[in-house]
Amino acid sequence: MGRIRVSADKAIGSFPDNWRQCVGTGHMGLALQEEYQNALALVQNEIGFNYIRGHGLLSDSVGIYRKNHWSQKDEYVGPGPGLNFTYVDRIFDSLLGKGIRPFVELGFMPGDLASGTQTQFYWKANVTPPKDYGEWRRLITGLVSHFVDRYGREEVLLWPFEVWNEPDIPGFWAGDQQEYFKLYRETARAVKEVDPDIQVGGPATCPAGINWITPFLEMCEKEKVPVDLVTTHSYYADKWESAGEYMYQTMHPIRHSIDQFADARRRIKESPFPDLPLHITEYNSSWSPRCPLHDTAYNAAFLGRLLSAGGDTADSFSYWTFSDVFEENDVGRAQFHGGFGLVAFNNIRKPTFHLFSFFAHLGDKLLYRDDNMLATLRDDGTIVLVAWNPVEKPGGDATFDIALDIGFPSAQALITRHTVDEDHGNAWNAWREMGRPRYPSDYQLGILEHASVPRLEVFRAPVENGTLKLDMTLSRNAVILVEVAPLKDETPTYGGLDESRIPGY
Amino acid sequence: MGRIRVSADKAIGSFPDNWRQCVGTGHMGLALQEEYQNALALVQNEIGFNYIRGHGLLSDSVGIYRKNHWSQKDEYVGPGPGLNFTYVDRIFDSLLGKGIRPFVELGFMPGDLASGTQTQFYWKANVTPPKDYGEWRRLITGLVSHFVDRYGREEVLLWPFEVWNEPDIPGFWAGDQQEYFKLYRETARAVKEVDPDIQVGGPATCPAGINWITPFLEMCEKEKVPVDLVTTHSYYADKWESAGEYMYQTMHPIRHSIDQFADARRRIKESPFPDLPLHITEYNSSWSPRCPLHDTAYNAAFLGRLLSAGGDTADSFSYWTFSDVFEENDVGRAQFHGGFGLVAFNNIRKPTFHLFSFFAHLGDKLLYRDDNMLATLRDDGTIVLVAWNPVEKPGGDATFDIALDIGFPSAQALITRHTVDEDHGNAWNAWREMGRPRYPSDYQLGILEHASVPRLEVFRAPVENGTLKLDMTLSRNAVILVEVAPLKDETPTYGGLDESRIPGY
Amino acid sequence: MGRIRVSADKAIGSFPDNWRQCVGTGHMGLALQEEYQNALALVQNEIGFNYIRGHGLLSDSVGIYRKNHWSQKDEYVGPGPGLNFTYVDRIFDSLLGKGIRPFVELGFMPGDLASGTQTQFYWKANVTPPKDYGEWRRLITGLVSHFVDRYGREEVLLWPFEVWNEPDIPGFWAGDQQEYFKLYRETARAVKEVDPDIQVGGPATCPAGINWITPFLEMCEKEKVPVDLVTTHSYYADKWESAGEYMYQTMHPIRHSIDQFADARRRIKESPFPDLPLHITEYNSSWSPRCPLHDTAYNAAFLGRLLSAGGDTADSFSYWTFSDVFEENDVGRAQFHGGFGLVAFNNIRKPTFHLFSFFAHLGDKLLYRDDNMLATLRDDGTIVLVAWNPVEKPGGDATFDIALDIGFPSAQALITRHTVDEDHGNAWNAWREMGRPRYPSDYQLGILEHASVPRLEVFRAPVENGTLKLDMTLSRNAVILVEVAPLKDETPTYGGLDESRIPGY
Amino acid sequence: MGRIRVSADKAIGSFPDNWRQCVGTGHMGLALQEEYQNALALVQNEIGFNYIRGHGLLSDSVGIYRKNHWSQKDEYVGPGPGLNFTYVDRIFDSLLGKGIRPFVELGFMPGDLASGTQTQFYWKANVTPPKDYGEWRRLITGLVSHFVDRYGREEVLLWPFEVWNEPDIPGFWAGDQQEYFKLYRETARAVKEVDPDIQVGGPATCPAGINWITPFLEMCEKEKVPVDLVTTHSYYADKWESAGEYMYQTMHPIRHSIDQFADARRRIKESPFPDLPLHITEYNSSWSPRCPLHDTAYNAAFLGRLLSAGGDTADSFSYWTFSDVFEENDVGRAQFHGGFGLVAFNNIRKPTFHLFSFFAHLGDKLLYRDDNMLATLRDDGTIVLVAWNPVEKPGGDATFDIALDIGFPSAQALITRHTVDEDHGNAWNAWREMGRPRYPSDYQLGILEHASVPRLEVFRAPVENGTLKLDMTLSRNAVILVEVAPLKDETPTYGGLDESRIPGY
Repeated sequence: MGRIRVSADKAIGSFPDNWRQCVGTGHMGLALQEEYQNALALVQNEIGFNYIRGHGLLSDSVGIYRKNHWSQKDEYVGPGPGLNFTYVDRIFDSLLGKGIRPFVELGFMPGDLASGTQTQFYWKANVTPPKDYGEWRRLITGLVSHFVDRYGREEVLLWPFEVWNEPDIPGFWAGDQQEYFKLYRETARAVKEVDPDIQVGGPATCPAGINWITPFLEMCEKEKVPVDLVTTHSYYADKWESAGEYMYQTMHPIRHSIDQFADARRRIKESPFPDLPLHITEYNSSWSPRCPLHDTAYNAAFLGRLLSAGGDTADSFSYWTFSDVFEENDVGRAQFHGGFGLVAFNNIRKPTFHLFSFFAHLGDKLLYRDDNMLATLRDDGTIVLVAWNPVEKPGGDATFDIALDIGFPSAQALITRHTVDEDHGNAWNAWREMGRPRYPSDYQLGILEHASVPRLEVFRAPVENGTLKLDMTLSRNAVILVEVAPLKDETPTYGGLDESRIPGY
Repeated sequence: MGRIRVSADKAIGSFPDNWRQCVGTGHMGLALQEEYQNALALVQNEIGFNYIRGHGLLSDSVGIYRKNHWSQKDEYVGPGPGLNFTYVDRIFDSLLGKGIRPFVELGFMPGDLASGTQTQFYWKANVTPPKDYGEWRRLITGLVSHFVDRYGREEVLLWPFEVWNEPDIPGFWAGDQQEYFKLYRETARAVKEVDPDIQVGGPATCPAGINWITPFLEMCEKEKVPVDLVTTHSYYADKWESAGEYMYQTMHPIRHSIDQFADARRRIKESPFPDLPLHITEYNSSWSPRCPLHDTAYNAAFLGRLLSAGGDTADSFSYWTFSDVFEENDVGRAQFHGGFGLVAFNNIRKPTFHLFSFFAHLGDKLLYRDDNMLATLRDDGTIVLVAWNPVEKPGGDATFDIALDIGFPSAQALITRHTVDEDHGNAWNAWREMGRPRYPSDYQLGILEHASVPRLEVFRAPVENGTLKLDMTLSRNAVILVEVAPLKDETPTYGGLDESRIPGY
Repeated sequence: MGRIRVSADKAIGSFPDNWRQCVGTGHMGLALQEEYQNALALVQNEIGFNYIRGHGLLSDSVGIYRKNHWSQKDEYVGPGPGLNFTYVDRIFDSLLGKGIRPFVELGFMPGDLASGTQTQFYWKANVTPPKDYGEWRRLITGLVSHFVDRYGREEVLLWPFEVWNEPDIPGFWAGDQQEYFKLYRETARAVKEVDPDIQVGGPATCPAGINWITPFLEMCEKEKVPVDLVTTHSYYADKWESAGEYMYQTMHPIRHSIDQFADARRRIKESPFPDLPLHITEYNSSWSPRCPLHDTAYNAAFLGRLLSAGGDTADSFSYWTFSDVFEENDVGRAQFHGGFGLVAFNNIRKPTFHLFSFFAHLGDKLLYRDDNMLATLRDDGTIVLVAWNPVEKPGGDATFDIALDIGFPSAQALITRHTVDEDHGNAWNAWREMGRPRYPSDYQLGILEHASVPRLEVFRAPVENGTLKLDMTLSRNAVILVEVAPLKDETPTYGGLDESRIPGY
Repeated sequence: MGRIRVSADKAIGSFPDNWRQCVGTGHMGLALQEEYQNALALVQNEIGFNYIRGHGLLSDSVGIYRKNHWSQKDEYVGPGPGLNFTYVDRIFDSLLGKGIRPFVELGFMPGDLASGTQTQFYWKANVTPPKDYGEWRRLITGLVSHFVDRYGREEVLLWPFEVWNEPDIPGFWAGDQQEYFKLYRETARAVKEVDPDIQVGGPATCPAGINWITPFLEMCEKEKVPVDLVTTHSYYADKWESAGEYMYQTMHPIRHSIDQFADARRRIKESPFPDLPLHITEYNSSWSPRCPLHDTAYNAAFLGRLLSAGGDTADSFSYWTFSDVFEENDVGRAQFHGGFGLVAFNNIRKPTFHLFSFFAHLGDKLLYRDDNMLATLRDDGTIVLVAWNPVEKPGGDATFDIALDIGFPSAQALITRHTVDEDHGNAWNAWREMGRPRYPSDYQLGILEHASVPRLEVFRAPVENGTLKLDMTLSRNAVILVEVAPLKDETPTYGGLDESRIPGY
């Protein structure tokens, strides 16, 4: 690769943090758990997502809609339609208390309102249409009204509401497209009944259902149904096979996902509502929570390009999910089990966590971008690069030769470099060496916690005529964060300093 | 009432803290929740129970036994019988980390091992016998072996294991007595297979099933089945009627429960194992988690006598339960809803919490006891009294006139008195005045927290010839804690002190 | 007293929170202490002051200016004038981290820059002029520049800088008025050299030195010296006498302090700078940190009127001080010792703390005010009253009969009332009963903490034709907070509720 | 070096943790500081010392002895001799609360009891004899009695009391040897007056004063003065020169310190009290708190041998000091400034901290020891080695070839290796690269914190015939911790595991 030129004073555009707008979560009932909240605190502290989205808000583990279960005479008279906000309040209070807002997915079906018994997942999400749409509307308006009462209108106007999840997959919706459109109409109108300024949208399709976008928007126009946002999903897995505890998948190139985002955007542009925002409300490499890929450095390196480019077409894209506290395929049976999480059990950070935390250091002025690297300028004058080197099969190191016009008058620059790869910031590899303890002891967790820390290098480099030569080598599946700042050298202020007189130095 | 004489130097016996040996909990899966753990921390900090017992350790919400749910080809090969310890470890780690040990109830039936579909409770506890006793034994030995591996033999020898819960009630056990005896035999032997010194027992009956004790112990002797402890339950509710969100009950006199304890003890004494310990693994006033009685001062005052006397016959008796985080009759729909908890939602302490925290101040030398009062001497020389005045229907204040031979040479005694009654330490009454907010705001919770603080009085009293006259009046449903200590007056050491010169004093 | 009429819809003005703008502190070196920081966290959590001001920033316990102490050859070459920011950074970081900004008092004199040896206080504050004004200016610009570097210009522009403390008292300034004016000129110009927008002022006089204001401002005009704010102090003590550990004082009426504020304001108005803000940078009842008055309910009740009226003329007035962590008259020798603090040792809140926390509940719309009461409307629609009943000599209860036009349509109002008086929220009185333990044990501290909690009453009152009759009685030296809000009664939503069926109720 | 043979089943002795018995601290008044307490919490969490010893308990910054400072009429009447325990209680409470006991150094002289004005240190420790020995005795008995009252006799019997510090140096004691002997006699007898079982000793000399031991013990015998322990100090610095902010020193070989310990032991053995315990109450490389050596990896590597061998002759040896919160040569003027601390400012761990934390992993069965390595067996069956490679001048790597008879039946061993050297676990070197920021920002502190983390490697090694070949290379000034445990490989329990099917792996 030839030498790359990056100039701090020549921004080529802006780099908004759409990659940070939203993150996915295991079903909302899990948010009651202490380990979930601990993991979220860690994620918010080091990455800081703006929104969180998960399934099951209306499912029975959150317990909002539940009639007469305790009475032998069917005699309950509760608030409005008998809604129970005990758990949902506890959940939303805890999210907002950690600085993250809900991206509210309205689903799945409460048992008492379901028209059938079809379920999805270990945790038995009922996926059938409501048996009574009037009652469904009362549920939606009751819930949204409660949100406004408890959190205030100003706050709730910032929450997007999404109707259902992946209705294009029979496993997730026991109705057809027309039935979904009906659900959408009823739901969107019920939401707007509370306040017409609350944002609502769909169709929340899986990647294969991207072709729902056009008929969905046409229906909205034709039927004069409110729609404020369009949502769909993206996974870049190709073939899959289950074997024992695991699901193995091969991957499409990452370009695949980027194209999916763009395809969705194009469909919106050509629709009656060309300016609607696009939210990719789920994406990941594999769509299975027992695919070991998720625990690897390769997963992080592979995703680098998507985080870099996804925001060009999507207003948000939401990594599925922040934590391995997740139950779709049963509770995980081991410290690492191929779960979606950025954070593994016991608050152990995976390589992909670090990819996100590295992006969190970037500035909003874009200086340079290619398929393997991104350079930005931060407001404090620091030049920040993230680079990645995914190596699927054989292969090896990648080298970047950069000529960096640093934009500050200084004879030396201070460089800090964080590295995650097969040998650093990689608790999964340490755990493999340790014999894959399913339920690690406190002592073993201390080792894994330590092994999850990225490598750090701090060093100086000379600047000649305003330019710094930065030659970086990335090992296999490495992701690196490089920060370049002026060296503010206070050494001359130390009176009497003479290192040659320090023994052993 | 005539004057009561209490002498610090005339102990009439010892007062062991059997009332503190154990406390009940909502189903074990709830122990994953953050609110549960916060409530437990509060309880342990102010009361400090030694053991905790709850249902559902083997139920699917803890997820220990679960086969092949994720494979489409039934191909899972897991550890031994395929047990999953992810949740149970997290739960037991958190309990032990708060200084409380498990009193392990082995039940209910994992879905994959159940012989039928009969369930109990909102949370759908499967109550049918195992479809395969060999597999059940493998589950038990696998689990207990894991406990020994993770926590050490020394630790696990301190944990009592109890087989099932209330098998005498058809709703809790879809078999007859003989089937339970079979379950017990299989389970007890499976436990002992891991280590013959681990303690195991039963029959864990409800109050009406107390007559199971004799045949149970006779069966053990006849069949040479190990048995280390006897367990049964006690509730003093009489009639009951459900109405809307509530269950109303009338109460037997508290004597009823005390007699139940004694009756169980008598049955053991007359059995082939006369020296076995007796554990009342559940008791409370009402057996319904939506009986408003649990939230009242009356409940606390009523229970005073049981806490005082129960330890005479029971080695432990376990208040059901420590927290309103509980789901047997659905999730509670309001801040107060008649739940069993010592602690209501949002860590608000109920009057009965304070009864227990008052008992936690007692010493182990018994000086005096009657139906409404208990006096002890603590090792630090403080005389500690707890008194209670339950007033079910009309009625009013109670007066205690006590002549207290204090046992220390001091012209004055320092008295601190804590009071809980209808107007103090009573968040429930404040909440009623506030209009019963179902889901209180932070501000309202601040008021409730404040309202839950008992009244405190600190004052001096003269001691004449070593005797202090202590005339105490208890209002309706009051429970009080009185501590009497020598006054160590440092006032004379303050140079120049003259209060008459302080303006406004 | 006749009936008072208060109408929620007839605001008579605004009630800004000038009383909360600033609070005093023991010398700045004490801010390194853990107990100091714990007390400040408590104060900020319940009251939330905006600024904090204390002596000794430049004194040797903060160690900013210190030359060559460690070298035997006088050879130090440090940063600029050799300033050491280790402690000052730690202090300011911790203040800002608790949401409180420094009101920067520039004093006293570093030992190495002092022209003499005269000191004040136990902690030996050197009060002599600088021996070298050039070096003093370098100290000031070096320090202020460092503030701008570390905290940013935007932040530092919010910090007022005050030159010295009480230069009108020979004990605090070993120079005359002219020498102070010189110090002021040199200092103000040094501050402005860093940034002309940074605010600086004086003359920081004690109450007796209020007549310095006019010549000070005339000097500023004549000499074209920058001045952005005027500062002076106020204490309402009259006679004083020392006896042993204590200083006893008699009090002027509180009117005295209010008049002092107004007098200072009048002097500014008549000066060449009539619009300058006025900051009362210290006030309290007694000016001695061993006057037991500070620990009493009377102190709180007495100050009520000043908190209510002081903001009419002063932009800020700063209670001296927030905590008993204070060393001017040696380290306190007992849990209560007459210190200035709102918070006594070991984080025990005094009655005056509660006066401030009660004011922190007020709204900013003024509905009514007299010498003993203040009524406001808060943005959330709650009417909030604070009332006080200081009784210096004999005397007794005070009664307020209020007709409250509540301004909301509700048949009932919810009233919460917090009370501090001789028997409630009064740890000092409990401590006296306990025999004044100088160094309480943890157990005794638990009692004192409990005794410091104000009494709370929560009850409903009927509203007739929009008016509520509120008849309040305040016992001797009581301060009360009353909040009146619409009763939102959810009781009818509870299905099946019938309290007559709850035993004991 | 030839191959070293280490056998897990052939212990050559025991390895007691005398190195962990005690640690030094900056003057006791500093223990009031929040940063001090934070650093101590870190040290206790990762190392866990048993005792802590520092100067200045009786100095004015703790304020125990102070007469009449606040009265203008000399009229104070306080408790006994007028002692003030406010600060000492706060300090001792906080130490004990962190699981560390005081090793009580009784010194220096309170200002009000001093016979002269000679001081030592920036913080002005008065080093003159008492002006009134009767008053001194009252101070000592008053203080020790207070300790017994507050903490209980059982606890105080565990605290050693040491009389003064380095009386053999004129700077620390303004009297001669005879005057010290008098002070010792008066003090020891005053301590024993409170309880004859409390332990007391001396003479607390600096290394050069080791020859005081013999006359001191002879004096004790002759005069029948109680003595329970012997204390002295050890530093291995040779030449020294001050330059600007720094003191440079050359080092004796570490053997020098080991010989000093042995020499002290020999003198005790030959004395009239041959069995007294020996406590080295201070030791370090350089005796200056501005010697940059303390911040280096060399310091850690150099000390390895002393930690390994010191316990052979000393019952405790106390590293001087745990934290850079220290004021003998003024407050440190930079993040790193050559201070004694294991922990630098802002809780940054130095290489020597890690040497101690590595030792904290050792077992108590000694398997092997030479000048550069130590191997032990821990109770859990893990073999633990610490090795060090100090390289003063030129030089380089060291290699250890070890044949390890592991003592457990396993075909593979799991090895974890922690490394500190010039490039790892070395915040000082990162800080140098960063331009030595004197007062780092939060962001810079994050980098330093990260840079202070030791390198971790986790890997497996084959075991042949019970023997593992462990070839380790230590870079210049490295200290390593190696743990060798049986590999418990759970990999075969994972159903369907096939890593070749994970993309990118």
